[in-house]
Amino acid sequence: MRLLRSLQSLAMTATTMKYPASIQNLIDHFSKLPTVGPKTAERYVFYLLKAHPEWLQAFAQAMAELKEKTTVCQTCFTIAETNPCSICSDSKRNRSIICLVADTRDLLAIEATKQYHGLYHVIGGVINTIENIKPESLNIKPLLNRLKQPQIKEVILAFNPDFEGETTSLYIVKLLKPYKIKITRLAKGLPMGADLEYADEITLGNALKYRNEM
Amino acid sequence: MRLLRSLQSLAMTATTMKYPASIQNLIDHFSKLPTVGPKTAERYVFYLLKAHPEWLQAFAQAMAELKEKTTVCQTCFTIAETNPCSICSDSKRNRSIICLVADTRDLLAIEATKQYHGLYHVIGGVINTIENIKPESLNIKPLLNRLKQPQIKEVILAFNPDFEGETTSLYIVKLLKPYKIKITRLAKGLPMGADLEYADEITLGNALKYRNEM
Repeated sequence: MRLLRSLQSLAMTATTMKYPASIQNLIDHFSKLPTVGPKTAERYVFYLLKAHPEWLQAFAQAMAELKEKTTVCQTCFTIAETNPCSICSDSKRNRSIICLVADTRDLLAIEATKQYHGLYHVIGGVINTIENIKPESLNIKPLLNRLKQPQIKEVILAFNPDFEGETTSLYIVKLLKPYKIKITRLAKGLPMGADLEYADEITLGNALKYRNEM
Repeated sequence: MRLLRSLQSLAMTATTMKYPASIQNLIDHFSKLPTVGPKTAERYVFYLLKAHPEWLQAFAQAMAELKEKTTVCQTCFTIAETNPCSICSDSKRNRSIICLVADTRDLLAIEATKQYHGLYHVIGGVINTIENIKPESLNIKPLLNRLKQPQIKEVILAFNPDFEGETTSLYIVKLLKPYKIKITRLAKGLPMGADLEYADEITLGNALKYRNEM
């Protein structure tokens, strides 16, 4: 009983620390960021308290201006500084091919390979029944509108090779069937630097199934 | 050789992603926070891009005002909203005892126990030769000035029970010897919920050495 009471008071301790209101307010904001708990938020705020005031002001300003200085391209739905974005308005890009990605980060990852010169369409997530992300909440309707343009010959599905990515791919393939457009998806196989001995069965199975002639 | 080149280009990929300048600027700021790398910073920024604009503005404002709304108490050196802080100016606190802590977070942890009603002195860190934190850079001189007040009867050393905390305690004990003030330190022993079987030797040794009569 004594132990129980002590443990209860210990648990209380963690929640009754009283910071000055301005510090607590900032801790509360940081705590909302993904994977950030109150202790990590505290550490961030105490780092900022010691940081150079000008740098801190620049940080706050960058945050305040984030949404003002960015927009969503109304053609491909990527986050960009202009609408249409620099890719959609670039006349050198191949306008016969559209690569579908879940979000802007995936688009940038593909751009970084410098291997792709077509257009994109950011659908804004993947279908996920647990997180209640339904097809209706994704940018799929505007995609179907884009596909009415006769110059489009191919759509590449570039979603993560996981359950949600596969579900989304299958859903879109079904929708695109009537359009008579070539549908491809990113190759599956072994990642660079992989060790056969430690590769999971599905990856190794894919590597065998989709083997290339040399 | 081919593998090497591929791996080099892979390594390049990670650094050549091009975000809009306003996004990259905020990512760079977040990356400076302790334990935050570029990937985590990216995740934070993309979370903020989806956040409610008003909440984002409040977050930016809390950050901008952090230093304006806080100050350092010139008596005990804690981070507070007023100078002197609410503890130093509270006439109900016991002015004969000063608890030394490394930083404001430690002060708040002790306050949360509601077991201590004296004053504090935040020395601003612990002596650490590797990180080049020397006694001169800590608030020790102002402490010695405070100790000239005749009402002070006891100083509690409340540093972490680790190498740096012990070094700092020993250094301060030596300095305080001439002041004929009672010097105490936080008890060492088993933490609540500990398991004897898994307690480290030093902790268990301390628990034996400092055992209490019941």
